[in-house]
Amino acid sequence: MVKGLQSIAFRESPYLVSSASVAGKKEGEGPLGKMFDMVEQEDLFGENTWEEAESTMQKEACLLAMGKAHVEPKDVRYLFGGDLLRQGVATSMGVEELGIPMFGLFGACSTSGEALALASMSVAAGYGEYMLAVTSSHFGSAEKEFRFPLGYANQRPLSAQWTVTGSGAFLVGTKRSHVRITGVTVGKIVDYGLKDSQNMGACMAPAACDTIIRNLEDFDRTADDYNRIVTGDLGYVGQSILFDLMRGKGYDIKKNHMDCGMTIFDQLSQDTHAGGSGCGCAATTLSAYILPKLNRGEWKRILFVPTGALMSTVSYNEGSSVPGIAHGIVLEHC
Amino acid sequence: MVKGLQSIAFRESPYLVSSASVAGKKEGEGPLGKMFDMVEQEDLFGENTWEEAESTMQKEACLLAMGKAHVEPKDVRYLFGGDLLRQGVATSMGVEELGIPMFGLFGACSTSGEALALASMSVAAGYGEYMLAVTSSHFGSAEKEFRFPLGYANQRPLSAQWTVTGSGAFLVGTKRSHVRITGVTVGKIVDYGLKDSQNMGACMAPAACDTIIRNLEDFDRTADDYNRIVTGDLGYVGQSILFDLMRGKGYDIKKNHMDCGMTIFDQLSQDTHAGGSGCGCAATTLSAYILPKLNRGEWKRILFVPTGALMSTVSYNEGSSVPGIAHGIVLEHC
Repeated sequence: MVKGLQSIAFRESPYLVSSASVAGKKEGEGPLGKMFDMVEQEDLFGENTWEEAESTMQKEACLLAMGKAHVEPKDVRYLFGGDLLRQGVATSMGVEELGIPMFGLFGACSTSGEALALASMSVAAGYGEYMLAVTSSHFGSAEKEFRFPLGYANQRPLSAQWTVTGSGAFLVGTKRSHVRITGVTVGKIVDYGLKDSQNMGACMAPAACDTIIRNLEDFDRTADDYNRIVTGDLGYVGQSILFDLMRGKGYDIKKNHMDCGMTIFDQLSQDTHAGGSGCGCAATTLSAYILPKLNRGEWKRILFVPTGALMSTVSYNEGSSVPGIAHGIVLEHC
Repeated sequence: MVKGLQSIAFRESPYLVSSASVAGKKEGEGPLGKMFDMVEQEDLFGENTWEEAESTMQKEACLLAMGKAHVEPKDVRYLFGGDLLRQGVATSMGVEELGIPMFGLFGACSTSGEALALASMSVAAGYGEYMLAVTSSHFGSAEKEFRFPLGYANQRPLSAQWTVTGSGAFLVGTKRSHVRITGVTVGKIVDYGLKDSQNMGACMAPAACDTIIRNLEDFDRTADDYNRIVTGDLGYVGQSILFDLMRGKGYDIKKNHMDCGMTIFDQLSQDTHAGGSGCGCAATTLSAYILPKLNRGEWKRILFVPTGALMSTVSYNEGSSVPGIAHGIVLEHC
């Protein structure tokens, strides 16, 4: 069942039974706008604070994902969820009402991969028929958490990315669908000593490189064995660093690489600087754009590699570097 | 393999191969002082910040736990770790050097239970020979994170608890030892609407009650089937609420209940108000005090139930309640 040092190839691969995406206004105006299950025109989602808005997105995404599969919360064995906010409050307050036994996670923007890995490991182990994986991010709550409140109207450097307002939820289970999670590659923390929290693409690219190479070696594959190698939110800066790092190790993934942070917004008309980011970036893009292609068989196999920058305002203000982590999920049409 | 709705009874129970505890000065002066593997007289642990000190404790605890079992980091398949700080930086920066593929967790002070649950689920599923579970808390970093910097010398209400400076690491694996993890009960978020972040015992007691009853029902046991039902850090206030709640549901656990937060400090001479708390409280007490008793067979079976208060400074300042979560781990002498 287990291959290599960091990867698991499932003997009995769980299915990605259903998924849902909930997104904010700017995301709704982007290239994937029509593909999201729900787009809210008001980024407070009817709540009083950005944090409550983010929780509401998570709850809605979970309910939609379960609804599509006609599964009720009581049928879901465990929930794996996380977000970017301190002490993961968006998740705690968001999924509370569902009453599903839950594991809170933190993997920065790699959390969708972490949650999918644990959900699929749990289903494959026979611990339950259905597991739910959910993550979210919100531009308003993230700017407040990591940078400045929106009202401050600070300038952003060109390497900065735009946190996606969105949540993606994924129901993983034993019930047949057209997409299976056939393997996972759990990431190590990779630290190149970079300290610029406004250039997260550069901080995360080394982790993406490490996990992708690990995955290819563990599964004895080449980049061409994947229709796409999909990173979460490296953005324009991170992608070019990833290409350089991969080339340095003898790999060329240029022609089948895709980055969710470069897909979710239109670079010309939406001006996000280096692209989109946040837990919600990879999760909503996976649900709205990638899974339909896998479902239809347009893509046969992809490697989904959301990346996270491990930092807090305290850690970088105290001079720590910003290490990265990336988890790889192998998704196949069936 | 699976019983009830929230619990797993392992068919092939993993072993708790080894563990280690690292603690601060005040903890070293308490009743368990001589039992910790390492006590540092200087709470900065040779570092420049409380956060770095906490990371150092985690790294030391991991190295000690692995060292006791003559296991090297490269032999550990996955690490499950978390702490109380925003974006889990104590863990990220602490375990980074070990180079073990890792899952970052957040379950507030229930994190040791969450990490042990996932580590044992992964070993039982055959995903690897060894998994490492680690958590920590630090009085200095926690006061700064949730309340006031230490230099402010604020008064604390009598219901407040004292965050333990300590880290516990646990190596779970297939290698025989005298303690097995025979089952887990994954907790739900339980919210009684309490909003006093300085009375966490009250916020967490309902979750402890829920998980303990769930465990007893799922495994068809009575409280007497456990030598001890060990909560993590309910403290004096939380314990009395737990007893009331349990009595209301027809359960009496008074004679075999133990709380790590009431064990780690001496109430008369160390004046912590309502007791100890923090991820490190339950983890160090489990490693230093409980596991030796299970190892020797003095106790045959215990239910370890660390509890977490799910909140951040943002959530409670914005008026959210403080829900709780508790995970149950069944440990047996063998």
